[in-house]
Amino acid sequence: MSSNSFGKIFTVTTFGESHGPAIGCVIDGCPPGLAIGPEEFRTDLERRATGRSRYTSQRHEADEVEILSGVYEGRTTGTPIALLIRNTDQRSKDYGDIASTFRPGHADYTYWQKYGIRDPRGGGRSSARETTMRVAAGVVAKKWLAERHGVQVRGYLAQIGDITPATFDWQAVEQNPFFWPDAAQVPALEAHINALRKSGDSVGARVNVVADGVPPGWGEPIYGKLDGELASALMSINAVKGVEIGDGFAAVSQRGSEHRDEMSMAGFASNHAGGILGGISSGQPVTASIVLKPTSSILIPGRSVNLAGEPAEVVTKGRHDPCVGIRATPIAEAMMALVLIDQALRHRAQCGDVGAIAPRIP
Amino acid sequence: MSSNSFGKIFTVTTFGESHGPAIGCVIDGCPPGLAIGPEEFRTDLERRATGRSRYTSQRHEADEVEILSGVYEGRTTGTPIALLIRNTDQRSKDYGDIASTFRPGHADYTYWQKYGIRDPRGGGRSSARETTMRVAAGVVAKKWLAERHGVQVRGYLAQIGDITPATFDWQAVEQNPFFWPDAAQVPALEAHINALRKSGDSVGARVNVVADGVPPGWGEPIYGKLDGELASALMSINAVKGVEIGDGFAAVSQRGSEHRDEMSMAGFASNHAGGILGGISSGQPVTASIVLKPTSSILIPGRSVNLAGEPAEVVTKGRHDPCVGIRATPIAEAMMALVLIDQALRHRAQCGDVGAIAPRIP
Amino acid sequence: MSSNSFGKIFTVTTFGESHGPAIGCVIDGCPPGLAIGPEEFRTDLERRATGRSRYTSQRHEADEVEILSGVYEGRTTGTPIALLIRNTDQRSKDYGDIASTFRPGHADYTYWQKYGIRDPRGGGRSSARETTMRVAAGVVAKKWLAERHGVQVRGYLAQIGDITPATFDWQAVEQNPFFWPDAAQVPALEAHINALRKSGDSVGARVNVVADGVPPGWGEPIYGKLDGELASALMSINAVKGVEIGDGFAAVSQRGSEHRDEMSMAGFASNHAGGILGGISSGQPVTASIVLKPTSSILIPGRSVNLAGEPAEVVTKGRHDPCVGIRATPIAEAMMALVLIDQALRHRAQCGDVGAIAPRIP
Amino acid sequence: MSSNSFGKIFTVTTFGESHGPAIGCVIDGCPPGLAIGPEEFRTDLERRATGRSRYTSQRHEADEVEILSGVYEGRTTGTPIALLIRNTDQRSKDYGDIASTFRPGHADYTYWQKYGIRDPRGGGRSSARETTMRVAAGVVAKKWLAERHGVQVRGYLAQIGDITPATFDWQAVEQNPFFWPDAAQVPALEAHINALRKSGDSVGARVNVVADGVPPGWGEPIYGKLDGELASALMSINAVKGVEIGDGFAAVSQRGSEHRDEMSMAGFASNHAGGILGGISSGQPVTASIVLKPTSSILIPGRSVNLAGEPAEVVTKGRHDPCVGIRATPIAEAMMALVLIDQALRHRAQCGDVGAIAPRIP
Repeated sequence: MSSNSFGKIFTVTTFGESHGPAIGCVIDGCPPGLAIGPEEFRTDLERRATGRSRYTSQRHEADEVEILSGVYEGRTTGTPIALLIRNTDQRSKDYGDIASTFRPGHADYTYWQKYGIRDPRGGGRSSARETTMRVAAGVVAKKWLAERHGVQVRGYLAQIGDITPATFDWQAVEQNPFFWPDAAQVPALEAHINALRKSGDSVGARVNVVADGVPPGWGEPIYGKLDGELASALMSINAVKGVEIGDGFAAVSQRGSEHRDEMSMAGFASNHAGGILGGISSGQPVTASIVLKPTSSILIPGRSVNLAGEPAEVVTKGRHDPCVGIRATPIAEAMMALVLIDQALRHRAQCGDVGAIAPRIP
Repeated sequence: MSSNSFGKIFTVTTFGESHGPAIGCVIDGCPPGLAIGPEEFRTDLERRATGRSRYTSQRHEADEVEILSGVYEGRTTGTPIALLIRNTDQRSKDYGDIASTFRPGHADYTYWQKYGIRDPRGGGRSSARETTMRVAAGVVAKKWLAERHGVQVRGYLAQIGDITPATFDWQAVEQNPFFWPDAAQVPALEAHINALRKSGDSVGARVNVVADGVPPGWGEPIYGKLDGELASALMSINAVKGVEIGDGFAAVSQRGSEHRDEMSMAGFASNHAGGILGGISSGQPVTASIVLKPTSSILIPGRSVNLAGEPAEVVTKGRHDPCVGIRATPIAEAMMALVLIDQALRHRAQCGDVGAIAPRIP
Repeated sequence: MSSNSFGKIFTVTTFGESHGPAIGCVIDGCPPGLAIGPEEFRTDLERRATGRSRYTSQRHEADEVEILSGVYEGRTTGTPIALLIRNTDQRSKDYGDIASTFRPGHADYTYWQKYGIRDPRGGGRSSARETTMRVAAGVVAKKWLAERHGVQVRGYLAQIGDITPATFDWQAVEQNPFFWPDAAQVPALEAHINALRKSGDSVGARVNVVADGVPPGWGEPIYGKLDGELASALMSINAVKGVEIGDGFAAVSQRGSEHRDEMSMAGFASNHAGGILGGISSGQPVTASIVLKPTSSILIPGRSVNLAGEPAEVVTKGRHDPCVGIRATPIAEAMMALVLIDQALRHRAQCGDVGAIAPRIP
Repeated sequence: MSSNSFGKIFTVTTFGESHGPAIGCVIDGCPPGLAIGPEEFRTDLERRATGRSRYTSQRHEADEVEILSGVYEGRTTGTPIALLIRNTDQRSKDYGDIASTFRPGHADYTYWQKYGIRDPRGGGRSSARETTMRVAAGVVAKKWLAERHGVQVRGYLAQIGDITPATFDWQAVEQNPFFWPDAAQVPALEAHINALRKSGDSVGARVNVVADGVPPGWGEPIYGKLDGELASALMSINAVKGVEIGDGFAAVSQRGSEHRDEMSMAGFASNHAGGILGGISSGQPVTASIVLKPTSSILIPGRSVNLAGEPAEVVTKGRHDPCVGIRATPIAEAMMALVLIDQALRHRAQCGDVGAIAPRIP
């Protein structure tokens, strides 16, 4: 497994640097016969796009996906699907300083230590620009999951700094630039982000993702558990520092009599487990939560060193988000979808001829 | 990659059911020439063992490791190292009831739904018994990491229910059955666990793991990141519901000016990142934290269903821990060690001829 | 993928040295519900066994398989199936000399150069003893292929030295110790092998393997082609120096008008392709042929060097086959079965919901 | 491992159909710091190109490689290297008929049976067009092997039909369009191919590949053997039906006293083994030979069926080679180079700290 690939059966390999000629991905193992066209990528790419509101980075990319292979007359053929997006708005002049200085909180120093060379333009490979292709691949995964199994993967912003939603409404989530489930709080969030931007600082965030309709049986013990794969997938998103399944860290102070989800033929009594038991889906909604650290690229000067080992002060003047967590919602959805389609196909491989199982809890 | 295997270069495949004839593992890709003997497994296996104190399960297993292959005259030869432990104390009578009933919070229902068949004896493959072999494989990994790179991997219990350590002392950790870093609190913990046992209930826990001495450069972007692999490895441990790297979820309310770790040639000013930037080690200690849910096997009756779809009440009378988190410490250490050795070898594969890199922050 | 593992979904990992405590394997990804018992391994292990006739090596191993995991009440559960065989007849005194001398034609020198250490007892890991576990794993694969798809995998010895069968009869194959399809030639073969044994020399052989009943559609382009995987599987057998699919090297002097297999709805007109087109099975019998070099362990002295770099003369006095190809037949069958089951499951993963395809050539 | 990827550490994933918008590949795991530019691909791509002489297909492709990622200021950075070639000369009108008819000897029928859909334009994914990207990736591999280890990989055409070289000269190989090692025979080959073209038929060929300078120790037992990987890599080339290592099938009639390569500190006395013992390189030249079947696309009508299950006659009028083996030489070199670099890096991963080994046979 190459380190720029994700998945065992439905395998996604991404490539490209933030300010190189292009970014892209190759999806291998997609089931044949799925209808897909270039226009289907637009919605999710727009949701992820950096320039869609003044609350995220002002970089504008067209992000038009070109399908290079694997689709014939509008349907997938089972061969690799290569997707390409040209980088059009590169402004590499913005990044001149960082070629020789290591930005605190960024991967500059570690890439340098690992490879002895790095592409400093816009963060190169370590830029969140790479996640664009995760979202694109996720569009294909989401579509198959919905058509074949009725699975729906959705996410929302669950916390910015110390602010949490007072109410929850899935309808609201897509109607504001924050993926925020409480419409009434949106003005306050706008004020909060504007104040942060003025102060030149940034803040962390929490994103929740939920998959409804996942049938029981997906996930492979022991090291290919559904929750293990989700943890890997979500932790691999830039800036993520923690992953929870179900109740997550709240379980530390729960009692067993409270946490275990009791069952009856009418359904599970609760979903503390987040829809996963022993690494395998239970048929309940699969729930995960992630935390994204505050953006490291800020206007407040930070102390660092340069390539010569001399002290250096770093101020990031480019286009950056005061809260990278805001646009992480579609990325987290994509990663959950990539995990689910891969597990669905893995399950079909090993257990494809297991007959109808009873009892099945609704 | 098989789902019962972990690692890309240093690959560990485990097998065995809780009450089957034996459990074991095959380690493939271990560097040759490492001195290892059967006696070296004892310490860590004893640390993990269920019967070592009255605060954990009373099941007694000898857990003597037999080395079946891969070691010649006391040294690894580069061929697969097979380790075997016979199951001696099986008491399968304890588990008669659960063959036809799905225990809440356990993998019984999901294994059944996935495979259409399951080994119910002691939880079968989903039992924490499997983690014994992770600890055994971890012994080999830890030894190589220590000898070749001076890396030390250590863990401790950081929280039980609402109790957290008031002071921290690495010395104390190994001197009490809780891996607890505050010796003064041990009597209170004992009382707490005893009360839980009497009430028939259980509680969650948090375990922290730290690797000191990891050089910069280990970890592979994008989907083989060091933190991504750690998340997968730690989430795959039975009962784990969350994983944090560095500050983890605390980052949600931090500011960027606070979280980013500033650098000078004297060192990093802080370690909010947990020693990982862009998925690659920075040379700081690598820190992770996990939460383990409260044991699901408790004396308090729980509602469930049986194979016939009828309502059933479940009471677990067997030997179980009121807090499975207690003995998770050596398991978490082992998983971190397995991730680190694999990344060390992967780094050597791709970047083995990259010369000395300057500047290097101490 | 570890280098001691084979297969992507149905994964077999073998371990063990010729004269170590045991050899074994772990089968991961086996479909659940398959009936399998320890007695089912006997036939094929006996077919491979070294001591079954005076025409092969006189080493006697009981080769009783113990099932350590993955089977419950006689059926596979979907968890890893570990198989173990203890080495009972080790006679390590036979091999004392070779600890410090590199036998010509053996892996002694190359293992030494790779690892800087080697287990010299009986060839250690490079001994054909390892193939015992391939045959064991192949028993499971063959059974599933037969039960689920009606696939039958059979092999026979097609050439020893310059002797080829004059007639062909599948019935004859299993009725002589040579797997030879022409019963009338068996006495001549016996004489030939006896003469070779007296002369202290050895000879090469060719083994053919055929799978009947393989449906069209198995095999994955481009680098997971059915023929590519067969080539890898068969070449990995000890002493194999060449692999052919269908007509193989005879195709070099064929014309296109002769080689291409014409089709009608009554069937294919011929099978030059060996049942594979573009890496995917066509529904015809899948045919492969391999060559095994003459045994390197012979009584005729050979010039070599020892660990000190001094000239050394090597004479192998142990128990060895004058023609290792003879017992390669069940091993080749096993490897073909392992490739086929893996491809069957891979096909099910990606294309499991592709409906009935017309036209289908019988 | 996706089925369109090759290699474990140095991983190449190819994509693209013969007549789609583009073909390309992603190389992941390339060591950083290697100097590479777009112009370096030209020589080998021209060697493989279909239109370079009247003896191969007349399709003309510019085959200009664009480097999309992974190279900064002319050096590899360790991140994925994406290479892209636009398809410019597609002439899809040539292939109208084959959309509904299965060409004998082609993958049309098997792709249809596997996927239930196929891209018929020019053979789609099963076209030899895909091998262009193998050659491109091979250029990177060859360069690293040469610079880092002094390894040279070369191939030549060793047989067309019944014609074999009378003499051997490496100089001659690159001076004629047949990669033929005997300059004096070139006019006869030209006449032979011209006659074939006029007759509308085609013929098979044999290609030999040799790697000089491979150090001892590359290759991983048991299922990652150097010869096993070579077999897989070479068999995956379109039209290949057989693979030999060293003496290959000639070993069937050799004696052990003849085949085993005796050793002294002056060197090996012979190289029947093809430079590989026990799956590991011995330090001798690594030699392999492959056979390519005669082109299936010929002017002579062939019987087949169409999508409706009706009889159909197939005549291929497009641009095709009377002997596809001719341009297989650079492809076979590329595949050997890809195997070698991957094994070199795998060896470095596991055995990177094994010290100098004595004795080493020159």
